[in-house]
Amino acid sequence: MFDLTALENGLENVQGFFCGATNVGMRTNPANSGVSDVDGDVAFIRSGVPCDISAVFTSNTFQAAPIKHFQKYPENFQTDFVLINAKNANAMTGAKGIEDIETIMSTLSSKIEVLNPVMSSTGVIGYRLPIEKITSAFDAFDFSSKNSHHAARAIMTTDSFKKERAFKVTLEDGSSFNIAAICKGAGMINPAMATMLCFVITDADIPKSDMNALLTTATEGSFNRISVDGDTSTNDSVMLLSNRSSGNYDKNAFREALNKIMFELAMLILKDGEGASKLVAFEVKGAKSEEEAKKASMALSNSLLVKTALFGEDPNWGRIASTIGASGITCDEETLSIHYDDLLIYSGEFRELDKIREDKAYKIMKQECFKVTCDLGLGDASYISYGCDLSYEYVKINAEYRT
Amino acid sequence: MFDLTALENGLENVQGFFCGATNVGMRTNPANSGVSDVDGDVAFIRSGVPCDISAVFTSNTFQAAPIKHFQKYPENFQTDFVLINAKNANAMTGAKGIEDIETIMSTLSSKIEVLNPVMSSTGVIGYRLPIEKITSAFDAFDFSSKNSHHAARAIMTTDSFKKERAFKVTLEDGSSFNIAAICKGAGMINPAMATMLCFVITDADIPKSDMNALLTTATEGSFNRISVDGDTSTNDSVMLLSNRSSGNYDKNAFREALNKIMFELAMLILKDGEGASKLVAFEVKGAKSEEEAKKASMALSNSLLVKTALFGEDPNWGRIASTIGASGITCDEETLSIHYDDLLIYSGEFRELDKIREDKAYKIMKQECFKVTCDLGLGDASYISYGCDLSYEYVKINAEYRT
Repeated sequence: MFDLTALENGLENVQGFFCGATNVGMRTNPANSGVSDVDGDVAFIRSGVPCDISAVFTSNTFQAAPIKHFQKYPENFQTDFVLINAKNANAMTGAKGIEDIETIMSTLSSKIEVLNPVMSSTGVIGYRLPIEKITSAFDAFDFSSKNSHHAARAIMTTDSFKKERAFKVTLEDGSSFNIAAICKGAGMINPAMATMLCFVITDADIPKSDMNALLTTATEGSFNRISVDGDTSTNDSVMLLSNRSSGNYDKNAFREALNKIMFELAMLILKDGEGASKLVAFEVKGAKSEEEAKKASMALSNSLLVKTALFGEDPNWGRIASTIGASGITCDEETLSIHYDDLLIYSGEFRELDKIREDKAYKIMKQECFKVTCDLGLGDASYISYGCDLSYEYVKINAEYRT
Repeated sequence: MFDLTALENGLENVQGFFCGATNVGMRTNPANSGVSDVDGDVAFIRSGVPCDISAVFTSNTFQAAPIKHFQKYPENFQTDFVLINAKNANAMTGAKGIEDIETIMSTLSSKIEVLNPVMSSTGVIGYRLPIEKITSAFDAFDFSSKNSHHAARAIMTTDSFKKERAFKVTLEDGSSFNIAAICKGAGMINPAMATMLCFVITDADIPKSDMNALLTTATEGSFNRISVDGDTSTNDSVMLLSNRSSGNYDKNAFREALNKIMFELAMLILKDGEGASKLVAFEVKGAKSEEEAKKASMALSNSLLVKTALFGEDPNWGRIASTIGASGITCDEETLSIHYDDLLIYSGEFRELDKIREDKAYKIMKQECFKVTCDLGLGDASYISYGCDLSYEYVKINAEYRT
């Protein structure tokens, strides 16, 4: 038994961590960035004592320079500093991209004592980092500030709102620890991650051996189940830092808190999906295997025709069925059934929508969130993924914004 | 040696075939159909003598009733009649959908002598065919007409123009045969076919044993290489009918004519891609295998972020690179190079676009057609596929149109 309480604000809730941001002029045209709430462009997260760190990175073969830089540290290295910049992904920049990070970090070391500092970048691909702009942040940072809002806003790109969450976990014996996170992401959202960055920090006394496994599971249950546009970026990173300052830990409680914080952030990314107005859960059940259920569920989250039907609020189950049929899994139109929330809209015995059901379906689709359930009627396996609609806004944002 | 001459008009160029269309009121709201040139909704193609027929159908597991009906005929059956309707796909309609076709065909037999008539449908999924409306066409058809334009217009859905092509093939000895085709398709275009129907007819004296192989090859070189939105429909069909009336044939000449007619029609579909304004060839070469080259090339044709960058005319090679990296093939940012037409825009040694090259790239992207070449620098295999941009119009059409 344990208690999980949501806290106000974000990273400042975790003992021994500091964070903040500043503006060094990376955003040449803030008015045109599509961001309403942006403030700053370089952020930091640091801990007063060394942290264990686990990370999950993009499956894109062209991993960005900061990811390669991270991987140059020895296994199980500790760190106390994460530097994050927006507007430049430092991706496809080759060996120079890594050298640039080393130059930046050596300037950082001349300003403040740091242990194995890591970097994380998001923005346009194919341009070298402006080193002097970024290092100018080190004179502007207040390294002892605890300004999570500022850090969360500084890392946004096409996001329309900042994303942060914090929880206090109280164990049965009254002891407690904290976990908090900030993340960014709106477009290029896809399984196997996307241009999203997420930084989770905790003062739980978690053994390093638990960190990798729990982070991988939480990622699979959250960021890997959402899709805005089916693209996967070069920079996606989820990091978990623990400085153990609370001295308290319980594996089950920590697992639940980590899963919850990452799932909630994933839903915020989806709600902020570029131009999206609806969040839809696609459950595929009755499948022969979880792999097949996942394949069909992700095909639904990714289908342009399904997404535009959602935007048009058209109870067009034909596009759902056609997408499942095209996904390459075992299925049969006689055993298939489709529900929108609790409303049966297709089954082998019941194929044509009457006016009453069509009206009910319209009402369901007008909601901001609803669920599409496809029961294949062939087995026991299931999978759920989360998608959003595709609107004019998506095209506008992505025609005008340079990734 | 042989000569291939493009002919005016379409199906009427092939000896012994008849075609036409009529309007039975399938389109309840023609003004809202997005179609500017539509005329009729039920069409036929017939031959005065029995034809051999080959067909390639959708890879969607939920094949529509007309496809199942076709497959009930014995292998190597002959036919002399194809009936085509728009606005109703007769898909996901179960056994009733096939019975409906049998009912329609038995009415047809009472009006005119037919041999193994086949049907082909496109339109909304999940509704029974209106049998009486469709059979009313049999009293309106002029079975001895040769009106290819009318048939080509009647089968359109979201198409904005009719698609037909015809060629005369003259062999070295002066003998000749003809080949002609009509097709429809604009959205849901994807590898492994899409909501597209294509009917090719010929009077070449082609042996049945050549028909399947040549049709499969021509399909792989044409319709399977284009992508508008990555979706694959329940109804896609390409049919080749031969009545051998010319008595003439040469395999190489026929192969070339068939490849050419189907490739030209595929490009017409892509040009008519819903809301599309550009046609882009994506060549991936220097790959370790053709399978990997194809995977990367199709990923480019299908990527939303690439499509919106094309629409925005943004020479954003980062999205091209990122899509290749995410496609799951072997690649390396040091050996990769990217060209837009003849302009080098990325290589391992040359990573940042200067103003001169960026201006040149803008000019290339303003063209209606251009080519993106990605050389992986790892092997000898290559593949080319064809895509289009994604515009506001695509979203509008697909939010408002019910598939």
